[in-house]
Amino acid sequence: MLLNSLAALPALTIPLSFAISSASAQTDALPSWNEGPTKASITDFVTRVTTQGGPDFVAPADRTAVFDNDGTLWVEQPMYVQLAFVLDRVKALAPQNPGWKTKQPFKAVLGGDMRALAASGEQGLIQLIAATHAGMTSEEFAKVTTEWLATARDPRFKRPYTELVYQPMLELLAHLRANGFKTYIVSGGGVEFMRPWTERVYGIPPEQVLGSSIKTRFEMRDGRPVIFRLPQINFIDDKAGKPVGINQQIGRRPIAAFGNSDGDLEMLQWTTMSGGPRFGLIVHHTDAEREYAYDRQSHFGKLDKALDAAAVNKWTVVDMKRDWKKVFPFQE
Amino acid sequence: MLLNSLAALPALTIPLSFAISSASAQTDALPSWNEGPTKASITDFVTRVTTQGGPDFVAPADRTAVFDNDGTLWVEQPMYVQLAFVLDRVKALAPQNPGWKTKQPFKAVLGGDMRALAASGEQGLIQLIAATHAGMTSEEFAKVTTEWLATARDPRFKRPYTELVYQPMLELLAHLRANGFKTYIVSGGGVEFMRPWTERVYGIPPEQVLGSSIKTRFEMRDGRPVIFRLPQINFIDDKAGKPVGINQQIGRRPIAAFGNSDGDLEMLQWTTMSGGPRFGLIVHHTDAEREYAYDRQSHFGKLDKALDAAAVNKWTVVDMKRDWKKVFPFQE
Repeated sequence: MLLNSLAALPALTIPLSFAISSASAQTDALPSWNEGPTKASITDFVTRVTTQGGPDFVAPADRTAVFDNDGTLWVEQPMYVQLAFVLDRVKALAPQNPGWKTKQPFKAVLGGDMRALAASGEQGLIQLIAATHAGMTSEEFAKVTTEWLATARDPRFKRPYTELVYQPMLELLAHLRANGFKTYIVSGGGVEFMRPWTERVYGIPPEQVLGSSIKTRFEMRDGRPVIFRLPQINFIDDKAGKPVGINQQIGRRPIAAFGNSDGDLEMLQWTTMSGGPRFGLIVHHTDAEREYAYDRQSHFGKLDKALDAAAVNKWTVVDMKRDWKKVFPFQE
Repeated sequence: MLLNSLAALPALTIPLSFAISSASAQTDALPSWNEGPTKASITDFVTRVTTQGGPDFVAPADRTAVFDNDGTLWVEQPMYVQLAFVLDRVKALAPQNPGWKTKQPFKAVLGGDMRALAASGEQGLIQLIAATHAGMTSEEFAKVTTEWLATARDPRFKRPYTELVYQPMLELLAHLRANGFKTYIVSGGGVEFMRPWTERVYGIPPEQVLGSSIKTRFEMRDGRPVIFRLPQINFIDDKAGKPVGINQQIGRRPIAAFGNSDGDLEMLQWTTMSGGPRFGLIVHHTDAEREYAYDRQSHFGKLDKALDAAAVNKWTVVDMKRDWKKVFPFQE
């Protein structure tokens, strides 16, 4: 019997090792990430902070992870999705606003004159936001956003913007949550532009979405309470505003931060430059074929200072082309 | 055997019914609430929204409950706890600020002249807040708050303020959470004054605490990132500010709201005046012996319009004296 068993061993090793590698493949939480130091830096960090009794163990309540949205979780080229929304809304509302034909920055939008639009600067953008994001209740705005996202298509991929999310980042979000992390979005984008769809697309509920906002007012309309959106900026959740927003709304210092541009620099500094185990990651867009390649010179998602800071602070830099097996869920 | 069993039945009924009533007592989630319509309105609501397949079932993700703090979860007499903190801090900081001896509103605080202090109005209060809440980092402020709460004693009960919390409300918070609710504080008090202790005292983590705030700024100090507190009001989370804050930070409409004063009126309206099962509750302070009795004429926690609105909107009104078996955890 024993001899027979021993004799059978070499034959057994093949199915056994097959079984092991198959099990290991099944438990790879990040299948769209190529093996290498980038992927290892993520899985090592998660292992360290979740190893009970280990020197870097972090209690589940303190496992807060913050993610930028534009360029970190979904596309931001050829322009921010919310800017595409603004331009579409101006066109949709133009018939009710005949004066816009001759008034900047609306004239530039309606005539497709991107140079004149850029020349209108921040003041022009604020006017466009006021015209398209205010003057209605929060419920009404959520409806407008949802309807637009259901019908709008990205000019290059011809797909809804909510499909242009990064598969490796979806896996990363899920992996963190499976390990007790609470995942937040901390975006320069409008908070009420994101909340209607972040739960469905990213698994991130409304209360874990932070963003820029305009002022709102509570009022009774026909005996019904509403939140009315006003044409004034309330908070810009970008650059140094990100740690301010995190402190204001979460009230905990994150232990992991994920971004892709200079707008995320201060959030990454705030997260990683303190005692204890910390993780910072920057998505570097290096893949013009499958997505886009841009950094220091880009109009949207400029990555310059934060790329230099990544080297100094030992943040992980994702080389999209090298590190990601696939970019979008729909790609092979 | 069967006959024997049947013969034994009457004898069995006594221990059985004892066992049932004992089990029922053990599962009373609100033991400090006297039986009656107030308690029943709470347990009925919770049963309705958690009964799967029932007409009022609410998915766990939508079970958001918001609680005022001052006068709803802890004492607000003879003055708001945070005001006691301000007065103590002015006294503690006076030696470093010799000019305060002759300058209002500081002079009024140092001389215990409450009439002069009241006369300084909102502008005086803002000066006091600026002098005691700003000019330091968020970490430093948390330390000051924590140290003060550890040593300060309520003038009547001679106990730390964090012991002057309402036992029936602690049970209610726990009961809601046990039934899948996410419990939030939405207070007019300072958000960073509350966050250091709400998890320990109420089981409510920092990210579920909303409150008033001053402006803050992110900056690098000696190569270390900090959030610095500035002497300017950022947001007043009171009255019509409460639904605005809820929409801004939670991004969901609550299905249950708990308050005790006119400062909670709009939050209760926003929560309850919409379709679907909703619950509103007002704590009416009617117990001068065990706590305090006040409503329409009170300087702190005035309950006037919201008491009238409670009747119109069918909000539950807690008669503290009648409905609560005990008020504080330390009372028999």
